[in-house]
Amino acid sequence: MKLVCTQSDLSTNLALVSRAVPSRPTHPVLANVLLIANEEIGQVSLTAFDLSLGIRTSFPAEIETDGEITLPAKLLNDIISRLPEGEIMLDDEAGETPMAATITSASGRYQVRGMGVEEFPELPVVDGVAIYLSAEALIEGLRGSLFATSADETKQVLTGLHLTFQQDSLEFAATDGHRLAVVQVKNEIADGDESVALEVTVPAKALRELERMLGMRMVQAKGTASAPLSEPVELHFNQGQVVFSFSNQRLTSRTLEGQYPAYRQLIPRQFERQITLERRLLLSAVERIAVLADQKNNIVKFSIDNINQELALSVDAQDVGSGRELMPAQVSGESIDIAFNIKYLIDGLKALQSSEIQIQLNTATTPVILTPLGSLKMTYLIMPVQIRS
Amino acid sequence: MKLVCTQSDLSTNLALVSRAVPSRPTHPVLANVLLIANEEIGQVSLTAFDLSLGIRTSFPAEIETDGEITLPAKLLNDIISRLPEGEIMLDDEAGETPMAATITSASGRYQVRGMGVEEFPELPVVDGVAIYLSAEALIEGLRGSLFATSADETKQVLTGLHLTFQQDSLEFAATDGHRLAVVQVKNEIADGDESVALEVTVPAKALRELERMLGMRMVQAKGTASAPLSEPVELHFNQGQVVFSFSNQRLTSRTLEGQYPAYRQLIPRQFERQITLERRLLLSAVERIAVLADQKNNIVKFSIDNINQELALSVDAQDVGSGRELMPAQVSGESIDIAFNIKYLIDGLKALQSSEIQIQLNTATTPVILTPLGSLKMTYLIMPVQIRS
Repeated sequence: MKLVCTQSDLSTNLALVSRAVPSRPTHPVLANVLLIANEEIGQVSLTAFDLSLGIRTSFPAEIETDGEITLPAKLLNDIISRLPEGEIMLDDEAGETPMAATITSASGRYQVRGMGVEEFPELPVVDGVAIYLSAEALIEGLRGSLFATSADETKQVLTGLHLTFQQDSLEFAATDGHRLAVVQVKNEIADGDESVALEVTVPAKALRELERMLGMRMVQAKGTASAPLSEPVELHFNQGQVVFSFSNQRLTSRTLEGQYPAYRQLIPRQFERQITLERRLLLSAVERIAVLADQKNNIVKFSIDNINQELALSVDAQDVGSGRELMPAQVSGESIDIAFNIKYLIDGLKALQSSEIQIQLNTATTPVILTPLGSLKMTYLIMPVQIRS
Repeated sequence: MKLVCTQSDLSTNLALVSRAVPSRPTHPVLANVLLIANEEIGQVSLTAFDLSLGIRTSFPAEIETDGEITLPAKLLNDIISRLPEGEIMLDDEAGETPMAATITSASGRYQVRGMGVEEFPELPVVDGVAIYLSAEALIEGLRGSLFATSADETKQVLTGLHLTFQQDSLEFAATDGHRLAVVQVKNEIADGDESVALEVTVPAKALRELERMLGMRMVQAKGTASAPLSEPVELHFNQGQVVFSFSNQRLTSRTLEGQYPAYRQLIPRQFERQITLERRLLLSAVERIAVLADQKNNIVKFSIDNINQELALSVDAQDVGSGRELMPAQVSGESIDIAFNIKYLIDGLKALQSSEIQIQLNTATTPVILTPLGSLKMTYLIMPVQIRS
């Protein structure tokens, strides 16, 4: 392999795929990134794969000789990211043993030991019908739901996000057993086969990377005249694997097995009480009073007052102190006191994003729904906490 | 105590003194900040003290009733920093038991439990002759030397910075046993008593706070028409204590006992070789090659080449890779190979600050001196590392 590319292309793409390099690889070669130079298409592709999440990207380069090598991802990334801008030459001395690549830039010359490509596992290839998704719809759905997945690895399917595709709509659902976030978005992209429907649970870790990659692509698209955003994201799903591909990038992930909870039936259809208020006002009050809730059991009490049309938040952390915040709210239904875990509340208020939100509830012990006022169809459900009166 | 002040004044000053609050207080009251409201001068003062480092600041407030209380520093800081801008009322209900303060702002009301002031230790009072220092000179000296102090608490005096005051000059010295940084600055401020001379070793932790406080003051001064920078820093020293005071701020610290190393005699007077080169060029090359040195023993080899008038840096990390960087340099004296611990080199190159630097040396096993080309009188000494040839 012998090629010349720009420092910025190599550095950006290395940083991208490095997210799929495991911090504690089960096999030495998994700490490496696979580089493939293809003269015919004038592209270099980089691949990293932790056996669950795989990322492949490619970018243009002047390729003098084809070739393949795997190089230690972290070391390579650390060197390349520090090189000055400009051209870089990469040369593996035609695969000599011991296998190594020489990196030459204006100021210096580095040699990095690598490993053969034979041991590097193949990224899963997934055939079958493709579903086309709009990148914006995907980003919107991921932003509104990913935060509610469980971080507890023993919780299996709850560490994933449940995706439901149906004709022209997409539903994203995440729950950790204490709260639930559901986002519905329209998928405007016409599909060849209207009958395609799909349900799949994908690890949150993989989708966080997808969100990041799509976000970067959006930023890049804004800087250029071309509009790669109109290009859809292609999804393939089969035999426990899912693949998202777009532009020169591809993300593969195993899917999570097991029955995802029937979350739709948890969402109440009717409510006795409804409050409308400013999201930022509530969020900053909740964040302040969280300082005191932190000192106790993380519980905040909401006193919803129909008569004065206001909401009071209060925390009483004995021996430490107490706090009370008051704000105007449009309240319909009778006054009520209800308590929440403040962390779940903060997460939801941050994700809702609209300027006004609605809180809907029945009693102090049944599920409460938070929804944004606006175009996004998002539902955030939290269970209240019982308080002694 | 009853007073009204702005959120920004209270928040800024709390953040400042909080740096002297110990993370693991040996006595509960040390986790608190002492608030004193003085109606006569219309000022609130805040004090924190970990029994070694003490910080006191004061700021204007509308004081309705005098009073004193101690309140948990972290909790208070967390609440106040999150309050919206505007006026805050602070009221301790005339010292009722249990002692508490009520904080009222536009949106909410917080009560924080406190403790009486009786248990809060007095900040040391240091009498004796005052030395007046220019704030700029102090900042310059601290910046060029503090980084070279030892972080190893068992190293006693080496965890401190050694200050020498003599008539119109100030010398700052720091060493951890492997490298030494010495900065000499002029102290332009006329002193009442020209005969005052002083040597003292002050913990680096206290001086880092002093550097930060002076830096903040400099930033604030730039934003206002007044020039508080012309106001000198007043230094008192006595009986194992040192006090720096300026504007409304005061920092006290214990001093370190024990004989400070006779560092001046370590600095060679004559050199057989001298190299002049661009600091940034060398720093970025050293930072790149450090990626490989990290993999081995942190040693980088300098090949100083008189014939080609250049400097080559190289690292050979067996089994991992190797690197070589080349840059132009003005070399006088014979060519030589010499090796350094790369971390000490990076620290020094960052602190030197001038655009060009000079490296002076005799042999590959005797002390090497780095100095900036420019106005700052700074000397950075490192011992080379022996390499097998």
